[in-house]
Amino acid sequence: MTAKLYCFGESGNSYKVALTLILTGCRWEPVYVDFFNGETRTREFRKLNPMGEVPVLVHGNKVFSQSGAILQYLVRLTGMLGAQNPDEEIEILRWLLWDNYKLSSLCGVTRFLSNFVPEEKRPREVIQWHISRLRLSFGVLDDVLSRRDWLVGDRPTIADMSCCGYLYYPEPFGFHVSDWPHIGAWLDRIMQLDGWQPPYALMPGCPADRNEHTP
Amino acid sequence: MTAKLYCFGESGNSYKVALTLILTGCRWEPVYVDFFNGETRTREFRKLNPMGEVPVLVHGNKVFSQSGAILQYLVRLTGMLGAQNPDEEIEILRWLLWDNYKLSSLCGVTRFLSNFVPEEKRPREVIQWHISRLRLSFGVLDDVLSRRDWLVGDRPTIADMSCCGYLYYPEPFGFHVSDWPHIGAWLDRIMQLDGWQPPYALMPGCPADRNEHTP
Repeated sequence: MTAKLYCFGESGNSYKVALTLILTGCRWEPVYVDFFNGETRTREFRKLNPMGEVPVLVHGNKVFSQSGAILQYLVRLTGMLGAQNPDEEIEILRWLLWDNYKLSSLCGVTRFLSNFVPEEKRPREVIQWHISRLRLSFGVLDDVLSRRDWLVGDRPTIADMSCCGYLYYPEPFGFHVSDWPHIGAWLDRIMQLDGWQPPYALMPGCPADRNEHTP
Repeated sequence: MTAKLYCFGESGNSYKVALTLILTGCRWEPVYVDFFNGETRTREFRKLNPMGEVPVLVHGNKVFSQSGAILQYLVRLTGMLGAQNPDEEIEILRWLLWDNYKLSSLCGVTRFLSNFVPEEKRPREVIQWHISRLRLSFGVLDDVLSRRDWLVGDRPTIADMSCCGYLYYPEPFGFHVSDWPHIGAWLDRIMQLDGWQPPYALMPGCPADRNEHTP
């Protein structure tokens, strides 16, 4: 049964799921969501997901949203990239939540405002505020990764797939890998995993497709 | 074995845990963390939690952080307020993540900047931006609660305890319960649960304790 992933290339939250689908060897296909023309605000899309967000994973008669919940479902489905005991299960959940609260939410907004909003409309104070907050989060992540190779246990898990979601994108949003050597080494380790691909190779849609963002 | 909850009254994320501890009948005691004087940034606190955040729950030799992960641990410990089947488990996780990404993270920041930063230093553009984003989240929550009494299943779960975390506080941050009748009715239902108490009754520390915030 082929899973359908409603997504678009620029969505780091979708990338977390696409990457996990690849790494767990699932059969899946992307369904392009035209976010930049308002598709997630349509009544039809809200029927699929009342939260109005991508990613959405449809697998048989099951529909899931929120990347972290989808990742947990994929662990259950495949037995891969998950916890090996109840303590690890809580620890993975802790990182998924931290990522949603302190990392990906800030990355997503900062990258959106800094790149996908017309230059004259960018709220500079809001962007700067987010970049300052993000530096604190990068600091926490870099510090933890100075003492371990993977966020939970001694192998990659969905905690890593969640936290790396925005960090492979080329558009600038205040993340400079050279400032955070331990994050950089960890991103390299993830890139070495069998099947790894960058976001725009896994999902349809990229900034170059849209006129207003081509140079 | 009495659990220790490292917390302070103003922390909505701590309140989610304190409320769940009460509703599940756990033995617990609060340990005051002097957040406003920088305690979460100290080396000693970082040893307890490298993420530098409250709440932290210490139970025997186990240490947990991130409110949603602690809530999941309390479900496991007590068998209360949790999922009744695997589909509900994913659905609860979905709401915990949404809350962290789209609700509590924005509430926490907006309330902090609007109330606990000296008036002349408040970043108005950042506050207004957050309030706009929050209105979208309140809209999603109110819409879902127009069709159901509880976020998951037909009874209260930790999904409700997570999403309500900031909504009982008296300080203004752009949430007006009269604008969102279905959220209001749901907050009333939670208040009817046996043992419910508001944040400043459950945890030590409140704005009136700090000189700079008393009228």
